[in-house]
Amino acid sequence: MSGWIERDEAVVWHGFTQMATYADNAPVIVERGEGRELIDVDGRRYLDAISSLWVTTLGHRVPELDQALADQAARIAHSTMLGNGNRVTIELAEALAEIVPVDKPHFLFASDGAAAVEQALKIAFQYWVNIGEPERSSYLAFGDAYHGDTVGSLSVGAGGFGTDLFDELRFPVVRAPGFDDPACLTTATKLIFEHAHHLAAVVVEPLVQGAAGMRMAPADDFGILAEACRETGVLLVCDEVATGFGRTGTLFASEQCGISPDLMAVGKGLTGGYLPMAATAANPRVYDAFLGDDLGPKTLYHGHSYSGNALASAVALKHIELLRSWDVLDNVRARSAQLDALLDNEIVPLESVADVRVQGLMCGVELQPGDRMGRRVCAATVERGVLLRPLGDVVVIMPPLTITEDEIERVVHTLHDAIAETAQR
Amino acid sequence: MSGWIERDEAVVWHGFTQMATYADNAPVIVERGEGRELIDVDGRRYLDAISSLWVTTLGHRVPELDQALADQAARIAHSTMLGNGNRVTIELAEALAEIVPVDKPHFLFASDGAAAVEQALKIAFQYWVNIGEPERSSYLAFGDAYHGDTVGSLSVGAGGFGTDLFDELRFPVVRAPGFDDPACLTTATKLIFEHAHHLAAVVVEPLVQGAAGMRMAPADDFGILAEACRETGVLLVCDEVATGFGRTGTLFASEQCGISPDLMAVGKGLTGGYLPMAATAANPRVYDAFLGDDLGPKTLYHGHSYSGNALASAVALKHIELLRSWDVLDNVRARSAQLDALLDNEIVPLESVADVRVQGLMCGVELQPGDRMGRRVCAATVERGVLLRPLGDVVVIMPPLTITEDEIERVVHTLHDAIAETAQR
Repeated sequence: MSGWIERDEAVVWHGFTQMATYADNAPVIVERGEGRELIDVDGRRYLDAISSLWVTTLGHRVPELDQALADQAARIAHSTMLGNGNRVTIELAEALAEIVPVDKPHFLFASDGAAAVEQALKIAFQYWVNIGEPERSSYLAFGDAYHGDTVGSLSVGAGGFGTDLFDELRFPVVRAPGFDDPACLTTATKLIFEHAHHLAAVVVEPLVQGAAGMRMAPADDFGILAEACRETGVLLVCDEVATGFGRTGTLFASEQCGISPDLMAVGKGLTGGYLPMAATAANPRVYDAFLGDDLGPKTLYHGHSYSGNALASAVALKHIELLRSWDVLDNVRARSAQLDALLDNEIVPLESVADVRVQGLMCGVELQPGDRMGRRVCAATVERGVLLRPLGDVVVIMPPLTITEDEIERVVHTLHDAIAETAQR
Repeated sequence: MSGWIERDEAVVWHGFTQMATYADNAPVIVERGEGRELIDVDGRRYLDAISSLWVTTLGHRVPELDQALADQAARIAHSTMLGNGNRVTIELAEALAEIVPVDKPHFLFASDGAAAVEQALKIAFQYWVNIGEPERSSYLAFGDAYHGDTVGSLSVGAGGFGTDLFDELRFPVVRAPGFDDPACLTTATKLIFEHAHHLAAVVVEPLVQGAAGMRMAPADDFGILAEACRETGVLLVCDEVATGFGRTGTLFASEQCGISPDLMAVGKGLTGGYLPMAATAANPRVYDAFLGDDLGPKTLYHGHSYSGNALASAVALKHIELLRSWDVLDNVRARSAQLDALLDNEIVPLESVADVRVQGLMCGVELQPGDRMGRRVCAATVERGVLLRPLGDVVVIMPPLTITEDEIERVVHTLHDAIAETAQR
């Protein structure tokens, strides 16, 4: 690619990427975007079927979002949230309050999704200190869970993903089974009752464990988890960083599960995939426990410099409006049903395919374990102009929520050909 | 403020802020900016003498930065760094490589500064695993240090700032004294030799401990620290999130200290205060230890969704160019000398003032301990149109790097009047 790959590997360290083989794995060096397509430095086009790693919702270069960005830049890019406010951040928080399934929420903003999870963890921890029960300081989390890469998020995340390595830095948690165990939520519920006396919170990805390879639990199973939390007083934290903003077919996965968490982390899709922004929502039970004397010990002494960034707020605000006015959820549900049917017809029958899981526009095609099969299949789709990226043996399909009927067909046909070709080699 | 404060406190949780008294403390609700001024929802203007919490370098609404943002928006807002690249991120990393005092650096991008520190910590930890010395897994950090609010950053940060509360979540570190101890770097050096066998890295804010209340150590003292690291092999991590991009009078504080760290975290000023972006730079000794087999265990399995965000990259790239072409460092040094002299004349003699510390355009005016003196003095400057925010008893002066001679005078005169008025009450 005109020397760009060499320039890239000389100065950039890519996350979750072995840099010694980066260039050999034919990376796409993006220069611009158009709708749901990425265009590389040589002008080649790729359908962005992973939504630039699960963040893009409406597509690239959305005129309305670009306009919101420009309008806000003409006012101000950023001003601090520490002890002061910004008009557009207030407007965003008001719009979010109308849609998140958290009762009368307050929003603490950060930029990385992992930081929003850390905020939820720290708030849950301090909640119990503030109300005089500091012994409730542990967390219950799930097997196969992924909540981000900072040390706190990593601690509630499961092993795997190369994280065991950092065990010495991680604090211990009570661990329930992962979603591949059909009894996981029942077991988690038992563990809550057993450990309630020292539990601050339960942390869960509602409906879909994304990074685990799109592992899904039935929506109806989450009710008993929420009920156990209610009965024992343990706080319920939902990590909707990956599932939020329409990805699963409802605005938030918690809605389908019929649960209203005490704390919720959002990120990724919040700005439509434009800008880094994450937030932690807290209900009044939690929030009110932090009210106290000026400069007193009940205060949450935590805050990121770019919390509530005005540019990101403006884009996120317009994004929420567009999700509604464009009836994006209707498209997600229609395309999800189409994707499901097509995969059943074309992909499930393939010998190399072990399992296919779909929830909204989160989809995992699990291949039979083999020699870097996930990597090789995705390389073959990229050659054909469809950008996919695997999680181990699982090929993730995670297109923008505005994907069309034709584009869904293209993704599935391309994947079919790529699997067939790779299996033959 | 036309109901905006009430709307704000109904939905936004402000960091490091007691929300029960938020409205009483007369927050400024910002609507727009102009140069170094913030303009609130009622049209009142405030000189932003804290650079919107230490991030704004050139001022608000810089036409060249706005143009860079618009130009990039016309290409693409974001594409993923996981296994793929983006042209503007490569260009930014190349520009950064020319200015950071890290040998032949590679840059791993994140969005929150705390995440950049976490990356440095994890990279240092895995470095020793990768080269077969996993017992070197601890860190040496300083008293009064602040490195961010996620659990890993919080662990290397000192107690205070309300962080002791979270001790149960933090991993232990070897702790050297804070910068208020004149022997801190000598003591740290001794501790390095003593603990080298189990130390992965030393983590330090070079020159100025910002959040500690602008505590400063002499530049010349840092050489022995770097030398001890070299002799023992312990990695040197410099946290330049607050000190980077001209704030201390050189582009990076490490330059004045004559040190070249193995790992460096930057954030805040990276985008000129426009957008959330942070990065961790690694030298070849560190970076090369992660090169290995494709999908193998030497890989760093870590990566934030918005790593290398294209919009933020474009702004940061233009910002680096402007720092040079506008001779910003010359202004920082001239205004710093002016500020120092004015404070000596007008502020040091005041009975309520215990100490004044200046390094570049990082400044702390330490008041005699009293009844919320810092808070009350800053409230009085805000009333006079100069936005300041204290760290406990320390009034922080941290203006944009382009501040003018007249504006420096205005800040000092206003602070003088505010202290006089507050002391009389």
